[in-house]
Amino acid sequence: MSVPEQFTGYAVYDPSESTWSSVKPYSYTPKPFEDNDIDILIKTCSICGSDAHAARNGWKKPDAQFPLVVGHEIIGEIVRIGPNVKDFKIGDRVGVGAQSQSCMKCKMCLSNNEIYCPKLVHTFGGVYQNNDGSTTFSQGGYANYVRIHEYFVFHIPEILTNEEAAPFLCAGITTYSPIIRNLPYDLIKRGEKPKVGIVGLGGLGMMAIQFAKALGCETYVFSRNDSKREDAIKLGADKVIITGNSKTGNWIDEIEENKFIKFELDLVICTANSAENFDLNTYLKVLKINGKWVSVGLPETPFTVSPRSFMSNACFMGASHLGSHVEMIEMFKLAVEKGIKPWVEILPMSIDNCKLGLEKCHYNKCKYRVALTDIDKAFK
Amino acid sequence: MSVPEQFTGYAVYDPSESTWSSVKPYSYTPKPFEDNDIDILIKTCSICGSDAHAARNGWKKPDAQFPLVVGHEIIGEIVRIGPNVKDFKIGDRVGVGAQSQSCMKCKMCLSNNEIYCPKLVHTFGGVYQNNDGSTTFSQGGYANYVRIHEYFVFHIPEILTNEEAAPFLCAGITTYSPIIRNLPYDLIKRGEKPKVGIVGLGGLGMMAIQFAKALGCETYVFSRNDSKREDAIKLGADKVIITGNSKTGNWIDEIEENKFIKFELDLVICTANSAENFDLNTYLKVLKINGKWVSVGLPETPFTVSPRSFMSNACFMGASHLGSHVEMIEMFKLAVEKGIKPWVEILPMSIDNCKLGLEKCHYNKCKYRVALTDIDKAFK
Repeated sequence: MSVPEQFTGYAVYDPSESTWSSVKPYSYTPKPFEDNDIDILIKTCSICGSDAHAARNGWKKPDAQFPLVVGHEIIGEIVRIGPNVKDFKIGDRVGVGAQSQSCMKCKMCLSNNEIYCPKLVHTFGGVYQNNDGSTTFSQGGYANYVRIHEYFVFHIPEILTNEEAAPFLCAGITTYSPIIRNLPYDLIKRGEKPKVGIVGLGGLGMMAIQFAKALGCETYVFSRNDSKREDAIKLGADKVIITGNSKTGNWIDEIEENKFIKFELDLVICTANSAENFDLNTYLKVLKINGKWVSVGLPETPFTVSPRSFMSNACFMGASHLGSHVEMIEMFKLAVEKGIKPWVEILPMSIDNCKLGLEKCHYNKCKYRVALTDIDKAFK
Repeated sequence: MSVPEQFTGYAVYDPSESTWSSVKPYSYTPKPFEDNDIDILIKTCSICGSDAHAARNGWKKPDAQFPLVVGHEIIGEIVRIGPNVKDFKIGDRVGVGAQSQSCMKCKMCLSNNEIYCPKLVHTFGGVYQNNDGSTTFSQGGYANYVRIHEYFVFHIPEILTNEEAAPFLCAGITTYSPIIRNLPYDLIKRGEKPKVGIVGLGGLGMMAIQFAKALGCETYVFSRNDSKREDAIKLGADKVIITGNSKTGNWIDEIEENKFIKFELDLVICTANSAENFDLNTYLKVLKINGKWVSVGLPETPFTVSPRSFMSNACFMGASHLGSHVEMIEMFKLAVEKGIKPWVEILPMSIDNCKLGLEKCHYNKCKYRVALTDIDKAFK
């Protein structure tokens, strides 16, 4: 199959409130094909919260550029490989996540931390530095093809369908990496079970619960109301804690049945995508001494905290961004071993379904991921 | 020596801007003497930044109460012991720090984390829950006597004079505890030297530099200007980084000679006592992936941070409060082994010298601690 000079996708043209989810066809020239590059015919792309944030320019990036083709949970088939590509061949089923370039030379890149390379490029909305000195704006997976350096391309286990595999590439790795990096290994060595909390049950929370359970942790899910309790338990939660019934915001000291969780957890993965009505000072009280809070959602407005908030239990707050190449491979291995799968709603690719899917995702109206499928047919 | 029914100290009567440092004599009834209590004739009390904050009611505590006798770096001689006291005898030279009670029963207390006991009482400005059901407001060390449960009383190594020993009891333990709890032990096991940063050279910074050095770390001191460079190096700093010459606030990317420190440190102990003109987003960039920032100063206004600030290096921010009984004993042992001593200016106890000392401390006009001495003579 010959790859066209121009790729075609469904792009957001205007991030304003009434138009952000209305995509239209858009053709663009991809980055020059380099020796380690792979061209992928896209079959499936699931919809990440970041797609909607970027489509809305919710983070108010000063260098945001439109038309923008979003999408970074991409599954497809290799149709072209550069001469230096070693681990892939034409016809392979592969996946691409949210990162598509790094410098490969800095201390971050050389220590399996290429996600923190100061020169990292995201799969959409970034700027590729090409070998010939030119630059190219990166466009994502709501498109017929994507061109990616092999280091950011991954084999997909046979056991997973396209739509099951796609959410691992961002929602999965984004929660797997901070769990695996921050589990209390001292405690595990002593034979104790770590206690891990997951805040929010959406696309990321659904993956985080399963990983924490698969890694042998006691798993606690925090949700504003009771509507997702059953799902949380099906996904592996040992306990579900409801935070929305508090008058003061302090749902831990105010609500009798929540008090048990105070100072109990080793690690919390916060997938909350909004800082509104979110009392971080209360949430931090769930942590043990020296416990860690890791934000993986990126709310459009900041949380408010002061050093004093951390003093009652010497806890830590941090954030985590995606995960490394090595972790991606480990994650798929764990998923196969433990039967981890996302819950996914399917929408065949179309302009209307892009809009529907983006809105379902942004307004938390799906359980718990939407995958756009049959993308190759839509662009035929 | 018989201990009087009432103790006498120099108290702050009014926390307002013009009067906070003007102490006056004040007599008060101490907590009832219980079976594990020790009465101490106070000889020396050094002045902590918290003394000034409390005197100013800088943290706007709703339950702040005046007159208030501050002071929690106390050295004195035991003059009375309760029948259950085992490790001390009359005449012993001992020290008392900033904590004076905890419940002794909760999971914090039972895991050498009594500093995080929800019922902890501070040496001044707190409320003792007495065995007979009564309560007593706690008063500190600018006084003739103090009455303290033996668990919060410590033997003082002979090698230290009173004024040298006193700052260990708060400034010392407050920096020793977060260093010892958060050193990267994996890296130490691999034979590598941890890299530890200290922000601010004052009473706490002076101790932190010496502890980090004594524990085998490469030690980096951050200071707004060059005036303290020589002192930092004398105290053990391997490098001093000047942050005040930046026009943008981003002193790491803007100033060539500072760039080397980006993503370099395993741990930072922040002793900064003020959040004004303090660009936390820039400081966090000094940390390695998963590095930790620990605040031990308690500024009167909060820092502003967002999850995004932590995403470029997956770093963590936290805070730490004092240190445990066990850590206090370890710390004095390390001090003796490694010859760690604070730099202390001496002021004999008087009403005028209390004022002078409090102001020197609050406005950073001392090198780097002031000790009030001859306290027993002042109250004779």
